[in-house]
Amino acid sequence: MQGARAAPGLCLRLLRQPPRGSGGALATTYPTPLNPCLYSTHAAEAVLDKAGAGTASQTVSKAKSILEESKSFAVGMFQGRMSTEQVFPYPTVLTEEQAQFLKELVGPVSRFFQEVNNPVANDSLERVEDRTMQGLKEMGAFGLQIPPELGGLGLSNTQYARLVEIVGLHDLGVGITLGAHQSIGFKGLLLYGTPQQKQKYLPQLATGETIAAFCLTEPSSGSDAASIRTTARPSPCGSYYTLDGGKIWISNGGLADLFTVFAKTPMKDEATGEVKEKITAFIVERAFGGVTHGPPEKKMGIKASNTAEVHFEGVQVPAENVLGPPGSGFKVAMNILNNGRFGMAAALAGTMRGVIGKAVEHAANRTQFGDKIHNFGAIQEKLARMAMLQYVTESMAYMISANMDQGAADFQTEAAISKIFGSEAAWTVTDECIQIMGGTGFMKDAGVERVMRDLRIFRIFEGTNDILRLFVALNGFQNAGNQLRGLQRALKSPIGNVGLLAREAALRLRRKAGWGSGLTLRDVVHPDLDPSAEQLVRGVDLFGATVEKLLLKYGKKIVDEQFVLKRVADGAIDLYAMVVLLSRASRSLAQAHPTAQHEKLLCETWCDEAYERLMATLSPLSTDSARHTFRQLRGISRAVVENGGVVSPNPLGF
Amino acid sequence: MQGARAAPGLCLRLLRQPPRGSGGALATTYPTPLNPCLYSTHAAEAVLDKAGAGTASQTVSKAKSILEESKSFAVGMFQGRMSTEQVFPYPTVLTEEQAQFLKELVGPVSRFFQEVNNPVANDSLERVEDRTMQGLKEMGAFGLQIPPELGGLGLSNTQYARLVEIVGLHDLGVGITLGAHQSIGFKGLLLYGTPQQKQKYLPQLATGETIAAFCLTEPSSGSDAASIRTTARPSPCGSYYTLDGGKIWISNGGLADLFTVFAKTPMKDEATGEVKEKITAFIVERAFGGVTHGPPEKKMGIKASNTAEVHFEGVQVPAENVLGPPGSGFKVAMNILNNGRFGMAAALAGTMRGVIGKAVEHAANRTQFGDKIHNFGAIQEKLARMAMLQYVTESMAYMISANMDQGAADFQTEAAISKIFGSEAAWTVTDECIQIMGGTGFMKDAGVERVMRDLRIFRIFEGTNDILRLFVALNGFQNAGNQLRGLQRALKSPIGNVGLLAREAALRLRRKAGWGSGLTLRDVVHPDLDPSAEQLVRGVDLFGATVEKLLLKYGKKIVDEQFVLKRVADGAIDLYAMVVLLSRASRSLAQAHPTAQHEKLLCETWCDEAYERLMATLSPLSTDSARHTFRQLRGISRAVVENGGVVSPNPLGF
Repeated sequence: MQGARAAPGLCLRLLRQPPRGSGGALATTYPTPLNPCLYSTHAAEAVLDKAGAGTASQTVSKAKSILEESKSFAVGMFQGRMSTEQVFPYPTVLTEEQAQFLKELVGPVSRFFQEVNNPVANDSLERVEDRTMQGLKEMGAFGLQIPPELGGLGLSNTQYARLVEIVGLHDLGVGITLGAHQSIGFKGLLLYGTPQQKQKYLPQLATGETIAAFCLTEPSSGSDAASIRTTARPSPCGSYYTLDGGKIWISNGGLADLFTVFAKTPMKDEATGEVKEKITAFIVERAFGGVTHGPPEKKMGIKASNTAEVHFEGVQVPAENVLGPPGSGFKVAMNILNNGRFGMAAALAGTMRGVIGKAVEHAANRTQFGDKIHNFGAIQEKLARMAMLQYVTESMAYMISANMDQGAADFQTEAAISKIFGSEAAWTVTDECIQIMGGTGFMKDAGVERVMRDLRIFRIFEGTNDILRLFVALNGFQNAGNQLRGLQRALKSPIGNVGLLAREAALRLRRKAGWGSGLTLRDVVHPDLDPSAEQLVRGVDLFGATVEKLLLKYGKKIVDEQFVLKRVADGAIDLYAMVVLLSRASRSLAQAHPTAQHEKLLCETWCDEAYERLMATLSPLSTDSARHTFRQLRGISRAVVENGGVVSPNPLGF
Repeated sequence: MQGARAAPGLCLRLLRQPPRGSGGALATTYPTPLNPCLYSTHAAEAVLDKAGAGTASQTVSKAKSILEESKSFAVGMFQGRMSTEQVFPYPTVLTEEQAQFLKELVGPVSRFFQEVNNPVANDSLERVEDRTMQGLKEMGAFGLQIPPELGGLGLSNTQYARLVEIVGLHDLGVGITLGAHQSIGFKGLLLYGTPQQKQKYLPQLATGETIAAFCLTEPSSGSDAASIRTTARPSPCGSYYTLDGGKIWISNGGLADLFTVFAKTPMKDEATGEVKEKITAFIVERAFGGVTHGPPEKKMGIKASNTAEVHFEGVQVPAENVLGPPGSGFKVAMNILNNGRFGMAAALAGTMRGVIGKAVEHAANRTQFGDKIHNFGAIQEKLARMAMLQYVTESMAYMISANMDQGAADFQTEAAISKIFGSEAAWTVTDECIQIMGGTGFMKDAGVERVMRDLRIFRIFEGTNDILRLFVALNGFQNAGNQLRGLQRALKSPIGNVGLLAREAALRLRRKAGWGSGLTLRDVVHPDLDPSAEQLVRGVDLFGATVEKLLLKYGKKIVDEQFVLKRVADGAIDLYAMVVLLSRASRSLAQAHPTAQHEKLLCETWCDEAYERLMATLSPLSTDSARHTFRQLRGISRAVVENGGVVSPNPLGF
């Protein structure tokens, strides 16, 4: 280990990033996000109601455009459709220059993490070592996506994913420090900042001179982000807001000098004149005064990253520091999170790559019963599953970052899936690594238990996986519901809708006759993967039919059926994983990559098992038997809650 | 918190335990254990070969007795049989006096853990606080199963389970300190000690004046316990052995003054005169000299418990300190572990009870989206599953402790199942508790992350769950194989075996005709649970038929089919869980317990889902499609191992 000065890191900012083409992500404007208040019946009904509440004046062509507008595969499959545009072929978005620039970064960043950063020290000190922080700042690691003209590296999402993958491989605590700063801390400035705001703040953020934090969560407001209580009262003159409230579990909360803060502001409805509380986003400097923070929280993992309460007491925030339109803070918050999720999947793909390496090293060298243990089926099954989980996560991360770089408007469902999948995959992979290593894995020296502790929060923060599953399912149901309503409208006015109605009628007839939907992936999937593609086709068909059945059965009440929604989300995750693997493995086969046959095997095996899971989960989902099971589970839970814990005493009775 | 002196603990040893009847466990002698070298083809073949190698002189009556001798339900189901004797009715083994004595212990022990023990301090100090250790010793907690006449409390296994459950509820680190001492550390003395050995050592062990440790694992010998290298050379005069070697990961290794040590000794085969190395167990005092230990290991969890290397260098161990017959050390070791496993399940049932209480407390008080979160299906499903997992574990623990107290000879498969199930259930329950609590659960203050860290080792130590799954499966296959061979012999000599052959022929005919096996639980299961009982019957029938198919297909080579064995073990675990719940819930219904209806719901829901799992897992197990999947997984694993990790590069190619 050497000091930061002698580090192999270089000032990455001195390298010139080539100008970005139209694929550059940061210039993209993002669509209005879906309302993510998904837990709330009221709010979710509103979501599903959006199209249904249409008046007679809505034209059929509007309905038709709803039917066909999303290019998201994940959204389309809820309608039993396969929108292949974003997923085939597996995208290659970097220009020669961008690839070259990225290659020049990968080596030094990797070496920095191998030679300078000390994850063990960071974990035990409960902060990132000074020399590491200093080195990261000098490298430009705090401004990866800030435009070069403002002092950053100007990386695309794909380039960012690659570097974050390295960080995830080495130290998730450092990853959170960097991610809390740029993936969420000042991402709002990149997405919504005015030129003046960007000019003023981004240069000092790019160097890490100023560290940023994202302040949304409050004691009474976690998953239910819309329920925050922090207030920002406009001054009578309109020139500033007075901010009051407390935020908790803020990553970098104790280090940051700049905060993206969400607070309720009174907003007048132009039409009715009624004043309502709406959320607005603000850029808040610690220097404004009245900003304090609590001590670092004691956590299970990611100890290296600072987590603290942040309090705002009579903070005067200039009106020009409002971020995005006043009253649109909820949308701003959700868009920041949606735009950051691919990075988590990328980081965790890196984590898994490292952990699998450790597991293999152990399995290849450990002898028991006269044989290396990797020769035993019990170990082989673990390693194979670990490899599949890593491959899926990595394939999702780069698919989504590429889609974003291509300017895709509709990637939020995929991003949520990648966050759910990646955080659960990394957890399982690391758990199995420890199991393979046995006692060794439980010891601190092996370095895997730290990763496991770090990983536990990834299934919770930035949208718990439970909430994100509801988001995935309800977002899909909303689109499918729109389609059904469009159809209903088309039926009322069949003239001019002959083509649409004929197509839909044919689909339903084919399904009923057991002929399959006529969907095909023959043109986009490599022929060697035809059987797996056929599984996906049948899966999407069953999925679409199940969603339709559920919509017809539950109507808008589907929002209350969380037992159903969870299973639908699991199906969606499996299907999206299948298509992503089919796409990536097809590209590898078509381009005759050296590892193409191995990737084919990963893809086939994944698809075989995912298809079985889909059949087992989806087929009974709309049956009475499933409803019976859900009722039983609900009954058990109610009794446990009423009793304040386990209901029955010990078998001894005392 | 108060000092140990003011503790509500009392000297439990002063209480009088009533004399134990024939149900007392400690007087029981245990049967020759099955050879547990299950990872090894060679050894496992030997296991399966035992009956097959029979000579013509073996009589059919012998074969018949093999068929009928095991009273273990778990063993019997591998033959498609239901041996209900040990499992129905749910056993009530405590006499009035034993129950009374236990009741008098439960209160003070609970209060001691609530008021004196400080799990947070133990975890951060990385040792059990002095006042706690002192208090535990004064209470007699170090000699729970030592006979009263030697200074212990003389508890039965069931009584022990109840107290260990309390420990598990409060502090697993303390649990390991106590368990390493008496569940394995000196258990060999209780099971195999001579009267002189017991007299000499047990009194000081009972008071905790001397702490014990179990020394089996070595750097090159974990799961493959038979491969240890520590040696014990007999002196020429035969009066002592010289012990040399190193043990690792020894719980209490740094605290103990008495060690149960396993070492290779040269043994002469009486028949051939050949000298072979065999394992012998020894009782070794630190005071013998030459015993040293390493520093405490730094671990993920159970930090309060001391884990250290223990080295033996020229230690002179008197011949009278050999434990059990010379050369039978492997059997001694396995029997100690087999006899301790129920305790782990009992402790973890307690852990889960505590964790579920915390989860419920959070879910019942946390409001999001305008409602208490326990009203959301996503939370209800978690709580319901947590409750089922706790109920199964608890039911297994007390079933097995009761069977042992009843003097059952064949409980090893059940004990292994309870260890696998309990350790995985507790892991899942605690993980879900954290998920329900969200960010709060990740913080140290909530106290759940510590439990999670503690729990990670339970799936590894005292037989990894992977090895124990192989044990469960192969033990079952061995018995089923014996039955098949018995049948083959009976076929050669049908006279005198008419009854046996007719029964078996009828069973097979009925199966072929799809009539079911004719098995029934009608006499032992409460009628309200008939549908669940029917699921178990069909499950056992399918399981037995599957095992027979697999035996006919693979023959002795089944030992190499770890992919198959794992799934068979999972099936066995599900079936045993079903029968245990049917038994316990039937008793509660019959006795009209206040919680009987809730227990019925737990039982029904578990059986519904377990039955589905069984059908999904077992039906395809002997098909080509399953073999294909296993081949694919093996192929992926091989490539990953050959490549030293993940095979394919990043989708970017660099």
